[in-house]
Amino acid sequence: MSATSQAYEPLTTETLPARLGSIGAIAQRLGGAPADWSAREVGDGNLNLVFIVEGPRDTIIVKQALPYVRLVGDSWPLPLKRAFFEYHALIRQARRDPGSVPEVYHFDEDQALIAMQFFTPHVILRKYLMEGRRHQTLAQALGLFCARTAFRGSDLHMDTAKRKADVALFAGNVELCDITETLVFTDPYFDAEMNHHTSPQLDGIVASLRADVDLKVEAQHLKAAFANNAETLLHGDLHTGSVMVTDDETKIIDPEFALYGPMGFDTGMLLANFFMAYYAQPGHAEKPGARTDYQEWILDVIAEIWEVFVSEFSRLWRSERNGILYRRELYEDQNQPLAAEQALGHRLDAIWRDMLGFCGVEMHRRTLGLAHIAEYDTIKDDDMRASCEARGLEFGRQIVVNRARMGQMGQVLDLARLIARETLS
Amino acid sequence: MSATSQAYEPLTTETLPARLGSIGAIAQRLGGAPADWSAREVGDGNLNLVFIVEGPRDTIIVKQALPYVRLVGDSWPLPLKRAFFEYHALIRQARRDPGSVPEVYHFDEDQALIAMQFFTPHVILRKYLMEGRRHQTLAQALGLFCARTAFRGSDLHMDTAKRKADVALFAGNVELCDITETLVFTDPYFDAEMNHHTSPQLDGIVASLRADVDLKVEAQHLKAAFANNAETLLHGDLHTGSVMVTDDETKIIDPEFALYGPMGFDTGMLLANFFMAYYAQPGHAEKPGARTDYQEWILDVIAEIWEVFVSEFSRLWRSERNGILYRRELYEDQNQPLAAEQALGHRLDAIWRDMLGFCGVEMHRRTLGLAHIAEYDTIKDDDMRASCEARGLEFGRQIVVNRARMGQMGQVLDLARLIARETLS
Repeated sequence: MSATSQAYEPLTTETLPARLGSIGAIAQRLGGAPADWSAREVGDGNLNLVFIVEGPRDTIIVKQALPYVRLVGDSWPLPLKRAFFEYHALIRQARRDPGSVPEVYHFDEDQALIAMQFFTPHVILRKYLMEGRRHQTLAQALGLFCARTAFRGSDLHMDTAKRKADVALFAGNVELCDITETLVFTDPYFDAEMNHHTSPQLDGIVASLRADVDLKVEAQHLKAAFANNAETLLHGDLHTGSVMVTDDETKIIDPEFALYGPMGFDTGMLLANFFMAYYAQPGHAEKPGARTDYQEWILDVIAEIWEVFVSEFSRLWRSERNGILYRRELYEDQNQPLAAEQALGHRLDAIWRDMLGFCGVEMHRRTLGLAHIAEYDTIKDDDMRASCEARGLEFGRQIVVNRARMGQMGQVLDLARLIARETLS
Repeated sequence: MSATSQAYEPLTTETLPARLGSIGAIAQRLGGAPADWSAREVGDGNLNLVFIVEGPRDTIIVKQALPYVRLVGDSWPLPLKRAFFEYHALIRQARRDPGSVPEVYHFDEDQALIAMQFFTPHVILRKYLMEGRRHQTLAQALGLFCARTAFRGSDLHMDTAKRKADVALFAGNVELCDITETLVFTDPYFDAEMNHHTSPQLDGIVASLRADVDLKVEAQHLKAAFANNAETLLHGDLHTGSVMVTDDETKIIDPEFALYGPMGFDTGMLLANFFMAYYAQPGHAEKPGARTDYQEWILDVIAEIWEVFVSEFSRLWRSERNGILYRRELYEDQNQPLAAEQALGHRLDAIWRDMLGFCGVEMHRRTLGLAHIAEYDTIKDDDMRASCEARGLEFGRQIVVNRARMGQMGQVLDLARLIARETLS
């Protein structure tokens, strides 16, 4: 794919037009001559360079990996090959849930560079949730994305030789998996160097979580599932900062953490970010109580994402179950369609339990690990922020430890409401 | 590794000395000149050429893959690269449980050939079990092998980057995985073309198993675990024909089916073959009841293998838990050693449940699938053979379906005895 076969060099807004001008797919799309293009750098994430490049005909995104973690600097090196995994994830997601992710126009492995579709006027979902804005089709789009990518990237659907080759390919994404394995599943549960939290307000609850044996055992069971259960190709970093929306569109971006892992992971991470947005609302309310209805709307979105996930996963189970697992020869072809439904029920139950667990640990690590979220961070008042964060921590603990005994979403949402209302000691 | 860089060609007893004479590792070990070497072909398995090559100084095994399934012929092609996976499994097993597997003297990838240690006067364990011979250290050796390879090939112990690279490497063993996926987990449970069973005696129970919804759902959950849960490097084909013994030694051979899979798989396959040997005893008894004590000895071996597995796995958990999972920072280093024990208990419980399930399906497929076992096949009397086989089928069904509710080995052995005694309808 590499038209510019030269040694890796980070782009700048100045060098970008000249360096990418010879690439047909980019030049044609932008139109005019490279001299007519303007580029601005907008990377606000933790890892990469991101340019919006505007030409006479169209505007595109050019994303280039840096050989280190942008947030930290070159003391934390990170391999360029993550662009390779992002590219491979994007083209698979585009096939599995058409229209959900940016179209890739050009990939240059040597330059760790992806030129792709620019979404405008889309904004990051996290911003919507802080502003208290609603969205009619969000839950539908996210539920479908999670169900379709989970199902169609697995041995329920794929040719298993292709899936095994894909497992081998994505097994190379070691360093980004390590970030998740360490920062999500381990560091939050002891006094690791890069952790930070709202202090002293949260010191007590943080100490209590770090002494909580049941929680720390479950967190490691979840880590084992994440690291070993290669059920499907995951996005790997599906938080509300990886979702871009307008009032009627929803797009998923940034799958550079892609890996084969357990089916409940993406949905769990995603719902965690909605639950944190739920608990953060009092910190963004125009006046006390002004966001109460909006909080209920967030819970509705959570419930609907899961409903859509179950419904779409079940539809695909019945119509596209063409892989090596749960084959029709054993069930439908024997006039036993209920056997297939029984197996589906068990699998959804297992995904549900995993999902709750991943949801809980994500809520912990975003509050007391290295990487936090804007919903909490932008609450200026320390006591208010701590009050929001503490509720999220309590809720996360409950769903991690009790996930095998919480069968219903209604039960989970009631727990969320109870913790939102309670007076914390 | 390839000293003989020539196109693949199957060896014969005539060509072998001349073709391997130039390989230092082989020539030195055998001693003398190639003309002094004698080779005989002894392959009695389903897949490969196996030569015993005798020289003035030593005797070795030369195993060469054929490009098809030997049992079936060239209508069933099978890739030569399985020798590559066998070689890589052997050198890993040798490190993880020293002395348990043949030492590799030479590997030639192009020729799909492994020259390795010859065990003499060892015989295949299956033969011992048919003859009613006892063995004092068998259970100890097998339990240690299963525990050490399971633990040391996993994220409990390994550097995870190396484990991920290993997962990618073994993901290429697609065709041999396909044999297991199809012949163990799917074909036995419907009227697949290559199936066969003792007929008409078993027709009734076979039809009833193939109509058994709960069994067929559980069998597919087990297949999903086998195909997706890449917990550790498995032997992949650990039956009593892959074990060679003298009265005081136990060696494990033939890991060409090696794959990353669930920790309970090898032990489950192994115990299945002991349970089948148990049920086959009346067919090999010198007179009715003559093997009753020996049957109890087999159950003792089964119990001891599991005891040793648990004990060694626990020892390694406490002393070699250096991987990314269940890290000491969270438990022992926080003065909470019981947290690590809690997690260990959960993991052993999960392995136990998987193990019972894999045990049950192996008993089914060896009775009504393509590949059967000598213990049953050598029983000449059809009614006697069917009586033994039927009990194994019944037992297998019970442990697959009820494995989540059978916590104790004593309970499992009592069930085995009950089914051995009962009058089958």
